[in-house]
Amino acid sequence: MEQLKVIEIQKNVYAKNDEEAAKVRAEVKQKGVYLMNLMSSPGSGKTTTLVRTIQHLKEKLNIGIIEADIDSDVDAKTIATTGAKVIQLHTGGMCHLDANMTRQGLDILETDGLDLVVLENIGNLVCPASFDTGATLNVMILSVPEGDDKPLKYPKMFKVVDVLLINKLDAIGYFDFDLNAVIERAKALNPNIVIFPMSAKLNQGIDAWCDWLEHAVKSSR
Amino acid sequence: MEQLKVIEIQKNVYAKNDEEAAKVRAEVKQKGVYLMNLMSSPGSGKTTTLVRTIQHLKEKLNIGIIEADIDSDVDAKTIATTGAKVIQLHTGGMCHLDANMTRQGLDILETDGLDLVVLENIGNLVCPASFDTGATLNVMILSVPEGDDKPLKYPKMFKVVDVLLINKLDAIGYFDFDLNAVIERAKALNPNIVIFPMSAKLNQGIDAWCDWLEHAVKSSR
Repeated sequence: MEQLKVIEIQKNVYAKNDEEAAKVRAEVKQKGVYLMNLMSSPGSGKTTTLVRTIQHLKEKLNIGIIEADIDSDVDAKTIATTGAKVIQLHTGGMCHLDANMTRQGLDILETDGLDLVVLENIGNLVCPASFDTGATLNVMILSVPEGDDKPLKYPKMFKVVDVLLINKLDAIGYFDFDLNAVIERAKALNPNIVIFPMSAKLNQGIDAWCDWLEHAVKSSR
Repeated sequence: MEQLKVIEIQKNVYAKNDEEAAKVRAEVKQKGVYLMNLMSSPGSGKTTTLVRTIQHLKEKLNIGIIEADIDSDVDAKTIATTGAKVIQLHTGGMCHLDANMTRQGLDILETDGLDLVVLENIGNLVCPASFDTGATLNVMILSVPEGDDKPLKYPKMFKVVDVLLINKLDAIGYFDFDLNAVIERAKALNPNIVIFPMSAKLNQGIDAWCDWLEHAVKSSR
């Protein structure tokens, strides 16, 4: 009985969040803001990829960043060096962002005049996959050192994202990582997934990703 | 009001889990089984480290492994090649193991005659830190490619573990990773933490860790 109760609560949490997410999505669309949710494991290079993306697109788009972390503001400080508008959210131990936290972030950031807002979600391949933030675009990073078996072990994340960035490709000679196997495994889970291999550290492969993102932002208007 | 309700439920979940965990801990102690919980991000080398640990200790200790994954059995198959007793748990989307799941795993594994049982937890630096499994020893792996800022961003995990294994040290020349900074940051959060730098891939640093673990298992009797 007790376990049934928990399941019921979970369902309510998801259903309520889905409603909120739909509202957030409608609100940002009305404001002309393209909202992107960036997810990955801890340490796969979300912040470095964001810095490269901002550097590449800042003359073309007005960009704001919502950094979410359990603690610390090291990533927000790094992002601030690009000149982009950035705020830091602390989730108080929560393992993911939900639509309500996203709305709070958007309110604090103040999105007037912004073309693109990126949520840097908590580093976690599990929980963020279950909570719609209201983003227009869901993007994940998988980095080479994490291994090519991750689509097998964390399938939900690979199913819910629109774009997969395969990062730290410069380290591929150092790790046993089969790029073609990852692409095949990701596409088996999600046939429409768009994949960009890259090295954010060496600024390689960022052009193709940023061109795609710029087009997505501009064609959504 | 609604948010208060959720908090109350969470507290119940944690309190109930803590009670269950205390029971699991007493049960394994009575059976003479040393239960170790191994946690980390996805892809930091939990399975490779376990394989090396089993290879090093299998003549000295009878070892059983409980593999937990959201999906797939690739890790259990890898562990099985060592000859260790292994079972695979699927958590059905859950982002962590709790004490009840651990008990189910122990029952299925059948622990009679085993000296050491290792739970390979879900790859996640957030949720497993909040759920006591009933383990005697909590161990985490941080791998070099994840970055030296992880104690700042995921402090709870570094606070709750007894041992930190710093893995993929062979790749340190390739990544911007300050080993001393990690050790300082971990010790600031958890002054009693025991730290072993290693490369599971190259079988380096495994001896010191395994000697320590063997001593811990034998002195717990």
